Amino acid sequence: MVELASGEGVASLRAELSAILGDGGLLERPDFETRSCDPFRHVPILSPFIARPSDAHQLSAVIEAAAAHDFCIVTHGGRTGVAGGAFTRPDSIVVSLERMNRIEEICEVDQLAVVQAGVPIQALHEAAEARGLFYPVDLGAKGSATLGGTISTNAGGNHVVRWGMTRQNLLGVEGVLADGTIVSSLNRLVKNNTGYDLKQLFTGTEGTIGIVTKAVVKLVAMPTTQSVALVAVDGMSKVLSLLNLARAMPTLSAFEVMWRDYYDLMAASNSGRRPLEPGHSYYVLVESMGNDQEADEAAFERFVHQATQQDLVVDGVVASSEKQRRDLWHVREGSEIIVREFGKIVSFDISAELGSIEQVVEEAYAALRQRFPQVRGTTFGHLGDNNIHLGIGIGEETVERTAEIEEIVFDVLARHHGAITAEHGIGTLKRQFLRKYLSEGEMAAMRRMRDAFDPDRRLNPDVML
Amino acid sequence: MVELASGEGVASLRAELSAILGDGGLLERPDFETRSCDPFRHVPILSPFIARPSDAHQLSAVIEAAAAHDFCIVTHGGRTGVAGGAFTRPDSIVVSLERMNRIEEICEVDQLAVVQAGVPIQALHEAAEARGLFYPVDLGAKGSATLGGTISTNAGGNHVVRWGMTRQNLLGVEGVLADGTIVSSLNRLVKNNTGYDLKQLFTGTEGTIGIVTKAVVKLVAMPTTQSVALVAVDGMSKVLSLLNLARAMPTLSAFEVMWRDYYDLMAASNSGRRPLEPGHSYYVLVESMGNDQEADEAAFERFVHQATQQDLVVDGVVASSEKQRRDLWHVREGSEIIVREFGKIVSFDISAELGSIEQVVEEAYAALRQRFPQVRGTTFGHLGDNNIHLGIGIGEETVERTAEIEEIVFDVLARHHGAITAEHGIGTLKRQFLRKYLSEGEMAAMRRMRDAFDPDRRLNPDVML
Repeated sequence: MVELASGEGVASLRAELSAILGDGGLLERPDFETRSCDPFRHVPILSPFIARPSDAHQLSAVIEAAAAHDFCIVTHGGRTGVAGGAFTRPDSIVVSLERMNRIEEICEVDQLAVVQAGVPIQALHEAAEARGLFYPVDLGAKGSATLGGTISTNAGGNHVVRWGMTRQNLLGVEGVLADGTIVSSLNRLVKNNTGYDLKQLFTGTEGTIGIVTKAVVKLVAMPTTQSVALVAVDGMSKVLSLLNLARAMPTLSAFEVMWRDYYDLMAASNSGRRPLEPGHSYYVLVESMGNDQEADEAAFERFVHQATQQDLVVDGVVASSEKQRRDLWHVREGSEIIVREFGKIVSFDISAELGSIEQVVEEAYAALRQRFPQVRGTTFGHLGDNNIHLGIGIGEETVERTAEIEEIVFDVLARHHGAITAEHGIGTLKRQFLRKYLSEGEMAAMRRMRDAFDPDRRLNPDVML
Repeated sequence: MVELASGEGVASLRAELSAILGDGGLLERPDFETRSCDPFRHVPILSPFIARPSDAHQLSAVIEAAAAHDFCIVTHGGRTGVAGGAFTRPDSIVVSLERMNRIEEICEVDQLAVVQAGVPIQALHEAAEARGLFYPVDLGAKGSATLGGTISTNAGGNHVVRWGMTRQNLLGVEGVLADGTIVSSLNRLVKNNTGYDLKQLFTGTEGTIGIVTKAVVKLVAMPTTQSVALVAVDGMSKVLSLLNLARAMPTLSAFEVMWRDYYDLMAASNSGRRPLEPGHSYYVLVESMGNDQEADEAAFERFVHQATQQDLVVDGVVASSEKQRRDLWHVREGSEIIVREFGKIVSFDISAELGSIEQVVEEAYAALRQRFPQVRGTTFGHLGDNNIHLGIGIGEETVERTAEIEEIVFDVLARHHGAITAEHGIGTLKRQFLRKYLSEGEMAAMRRMRDAFDPDRRLNPDVML
């Protein structure tokens, strides 16, 4: 039974919010009974209201009204985050940016887009593509994940090795601070050192400093060539040499490594994911994207040739059609196989230096095996970005022993100066670990910053720190 | 006559600083009489002391001692900044990072370097190159400019079109806040969303939030190929088409545009800077750097060929030797010719959108001519980054009428949403313009941030805002 806020205060808040937001701006129970705060299971919204401002001014007024009634704000983008950043509480108002869903401008000369925070990444992709342009941040959840959400979580994805995280693809931001101040910093210039770079306040801070309402993002020319190969490699040192070789291609757009535990599961799944024989220690998907067919294909061929000559690969296949390219990517995107095989898993999104990745993974499994002899795992990573995803299952108890499983892996990581989250963020679910794995000075600086902008913890109070 | 702080307070501060810094750590008059706070003219240091800490702990103690004696801190890197960021006052202690000049580590596997703040960029380049690696931030002042200084000013340079500003080449930072807190956030991972990205506090904030003591920077494989062409182009729309064509080369590393007023001056200088006939409206230096000789040269040839076929260029020359490449760059790096010809100039470092650059430049000269019929100018820019440098002379009165000249140009820029500084920063000299050209919300957010970290204005009090 969920305890909900009620009474006179709520009635007057409702009236104020309605007046601010106008027709269709305010949702109330049971309008949002079926909405979940989590992409994988139903986590109900405990707030009495979802406020859907149509611009920064409305949002500013909503924040002030919430404060006057001692409600806090929880921000909702596409609710695809896996760190519990969208989880609510009864004394919160949800602010959803879903009505701010307009792509205001796509500029071909300056290769940029001005986009409202509620626009899904996929919609941005499509609008850019129609003009021969490309927004390089690409992630599995792009159909629902919004630009605002990906800014506030600094989302990564598959192309980070080439174009960087969301932070690197942003030019300017408009957002609203916890006291209702509208910060319009819609920079459109590559080089601009006029004052502090205010978009950083909103990027990767998970809505704890301010709420993004609009952004200017960089676009690039839509790549017209794509080459994809899948190769089998015996040994991590050869994987790293292969990465160096691949990096000589300035068009390198993905370098995805699957450990044997991952690939063998795919190959055995009868889902057509078996382009190479299983049993090798690593499988690497290499992708190049560019705009010069002749040059890009020649460079990719040379890469494959050199990799073979230098004895870095034991087996391999190069896609020669769009269908084959999709099929090779299909091997890497097999999360439904893992879910089918393992049932429940604890999913990790960690980073480690290339020089210690092999050791981190080995030590993590050794430590897990010691505590849970029945442990099973699948391992893959965006290796060029230091990012590894582990899926760990220990059977029936997997869910209730999540914290224990996490602590084992995080302790291994800490010894190797790794990161407990690479791209998924802290949210509400990793918050307990932050203090343990960051230094005192880092925690102090973060607290100072949050206290300066949101002394009353009005915005996403249970998120981050 | 400079008024210097003196008396008992200073004597006790001297004793404290000496104890903190040890042998050789403290400089006093007349040790630094010949040092200047400006790279182009002698601006004396008004502080009684230069504190030269050898690590973050010493720096932290220095800041605390300064605060106890009500002195502020002015930070000195290589003192190559042109915005007066290193200017001192009598109640300041200069903190120079010059004894923190060690490259602690260069990691070939993870392609990164751990570098103390006082290391000059050139020293970092040389150390990286010895391992086959490259630090992509490259600027004219690299012999003196330090890593710490370039981080705190978010320095740009010639290769921004390819590798971005300093901000994009940073992984982690160690720094000290105004209250002495040491923030060690020496991240070494490409993807790391564990908490706020604290290096942003130190990057481009010109030493007003904290002082950088050490950093982790990204390196890339040392480019082994370089292609350079200089072409003459009639009309800005063709320049922009050429830029789009050049961007299809993922190896594009510079796209430098010289206006006719700049090129004709070079061509007439008898300094061997006349590879093409003068008189065309624009001259563009295009550079590509890569690691695949065959592919890179073929792509560059194709670029030149297409530019000619599409009738984008009226004249051009492609360098065929290292000497010719240097000679072509020599045309673009002719600031001594401008100084010889113009005597004093007001130098601008502005940004504008590609779509309005031509208009901004034309309107700026028209407005200047209206007020100063005798005005002369030279114009060039890192066009791919929106960045234009104007050098403006009006004869004898150039220096005393600087503010007037700046206001005329900045007002034109404001109408076109340009930036009053692209890469040089605000420092003490552009500070008066900040309030005028930023929005209220931006100023409020900046003040909030500075007040949170340095409520007593201990660090670089006259800088930025």
